[in-house]
Amino acid sequence: METTIKDIARICGVSVSTVSRAINNHPDINMETKALIMDAIKKYNYIPNNSARNLKRSESNTIAVLIKGITNTFYTNMLKVFENEIQKKKYSFFLHRVEEHQNELDVALELEKEKKLKGIVFLGGYFYPSGEKLKQIKVPFILSTGGIADTVDKKSCSFVMVDDVRESYKMVDYLCQLGHRKIAIISAPPDDISIGKSRLEGYKEALKDNGIDFDPNLVRYKIDDGIDTFSMKYGYEVMKDLIKTGADFTAVFAISDSMAVGACKAIFEAGKKVPDDYSVCGFDGLDISFYYEPSITTIRQPVEEMAEETIRILFDMIEGRIDTESKLFPAELVVGKSTRNI
Amino acid sequence: METTIKDIARICGVSVSTVSRAINNHPDINMETKALIMDAIKKYNYIPNNSARNLKRSESNTIAVLIKGITNTFYTNMLKVFENEIQKKKYSFFLHRVEEHQNELDVALELEKEKKLKGIVFLGGYFYPSGEKLKQIKVPFILSTGGIADTVDKKSCSFVMVDDVRESYKMVDYLCQLGHRKIAIISAPPDDISIGKSRLEGYKEALKDNGIDFDPNLVRYKIDDGIDTFSMKYGYEVMKDLIKTGADFTAVFAISDSMAVGACKAIFEAGKKVPDDYSVCGFDGLDISFYYEPSITTIRQPVEEMAEETIRILFDMIEGRIDTESKLFPAELVVGKSTRNI
Repeated sequence: METTIKDIARICGVSVSTVSRAINNHPDINMETKALIMDAIKKYNYIPNNSARNLKRSESNTIAVLIKGITNTFYTNMLKVFENEIQKKKYSFFLHRVEEHQNELDVALELEKEKKLKGIVFLGGYFYPSGEKLKQIKVPFILSTGGIADTVDKKSCSFVMVDDVRESYKMVDYLCQLGHRKIAIISAPPDDISIGKSRLEGYKEALKDNGIDFDPNLVRYKIDDGIDTFSMKYGYEVMKDLIKTGADFTAVFAISDSMAVGACKAIFEAGKKVPDDYSVCGFDGLDISFYYEPSITTIRQPVEEMAEETIRILFDMIEGRIDTESKLFPAELVVGKSTRNI
Repeated sequence: METTIKDIARICGVSVSTVSRAINNHPDINMETKALIMDAIKKYNYIPNNSARNLKRSESNTIAVLIKGITNTFYTNMLKVFENEIQKKKYSFFLHRVEEHQNELDVALELEKEKKLKGIVFLGGYFYPSGEKLKQIKVPFILSTGGIADTVDKKSCSFVMVDDVRESYKMVDYLCQLGHRKIAIISAPPDDISIGKSRLEGYKEALKDNGIDFDPNLVRYKIDDGIDTFSMKYGYEVMKDLIKTGADFTAVFAISDSMAVGACKAIFEAGKKVPDDYSVCGFDGLDISFYYEPSITTIRQPVEEMAEETIRILFDMIEGRIDTESKLFPAELVVGKSTRNI
């Protein structure tokens, strides 16, 4: 007869939940009790199989989460929410990393065929599908927190994101209100027709509305295959170049927090201070924007809420209540110590 | 007749590789050329299908990479190497996130059955399998950069990691050589019998060899389900408590770089300086250890080399050249500006 979790609990003289805590490596358990339980499990050859059962039961109720690059800690919190929300629905999900050279739509079409998916989340990244190809995806799908190329008909698909133009406008407008007139931007390369383009657009509009002439010399980016665009290294390298060329500016808007961290480092290495010499701000609201010294003024995306909404919409589609639905979330300007009045 | 990539190149008067660059969103392409190509692709309904074909061809040559938690940017660089190395072998891989409450071994056994895997990489996390269960995995597998519980027979499996005891000894010994005698440690909770335990052990041994009495009051951790052990927030909260209790110390060893960043922030908030008031060091060699201000003294794990070795060993097993093989990599002490002589 198969040993059960109840048998182990009885043998060890503990509750079933204590056995469960031991098995699941839960911190809230006495070390000796845990050792006792693990010994009993071994001795009586008990095989905890809840998680295996869960996995099996839900194998035909599967959501694929496609993600391009995992360089961004931004997604970690979203994945935790996905995990919880999808589990509540008695579905399982798997994460599929889309390789840099792959088109996420091709990957999605292939996965759909092979795995009998019930739904797809495209997490982050850019989205450049042709209309034709979009129609080939037969299961409900939603784009979450990434960018959609401006060539895509936004009514033809569901998405959850922030308004990148508006939020980046908010950030740059804030710098203008602090008195800055010479504001540089660490942007994505010009072939980025998605998030990078939108955030640059917000920058331009904010300058215009504040009566500041656009200076192309203050728009900086780097084309280098070896460096991820939204990374610390990217921000660092672009900022080093900007300082080296002797450009005249008092503030810099980095279009991601990671870039902003790298930019600060380049400023420190040049013997300058943040915000005394240059104000620096970012975008996203990553943990590091709080823990960095100085803390970084940023636009915080409501990632948990966006993740919840992503799953809600996806299941409304799966369960036939809607065809498509989209939501733009407002983001929050969080003032850190990296920006100052001038 | 199906439109091919050659047709598109001919129609646009460009080379095939330029079309490929346009499709794959490569930065090194003229914007107008790209627009022209994308228009032609749409007009002639060309479906780039290389990546789809790759996916299909290799569907029976699949490696699963199991990862518990994706809070650590440490893994990003490893995944890039996995991607390249696995592709060279004409295999594909998929990333499977193991949920916090799941046992990775149960998940692995289930995946093995369903997906006809050729191999498994357990990336990071802790590894607590019973010997019985380990034998149930029929395909080659390897543990990479995580910790193995000291209850596991290390000869029964392949692994690639650093020697956590030795490397943490190196870090603490360095602090001793700088003259520190009162060294606190931000450690994992005591039920961690893997990486956390090993790094604490190295700390204790280094103190002993330097003739310093072990002071349990300087070993600090936090038990809180809501906070990931190796995170910035964890380091921040533990350091706040440490300072609040008025403990007497001049240096602190945080067992991860993220913890070290959080610890620095708590020190700054208390109106103190790093390293003037407290020296701080971390472990892992994450990007942030370089970009933080001050840069953080750390132990850099050779992640790229470890990732390459992981795949080499796995394929030596898959191709029948070896049964198991393990390698401990030496890590490098990287001196930042967060530590000083006293």
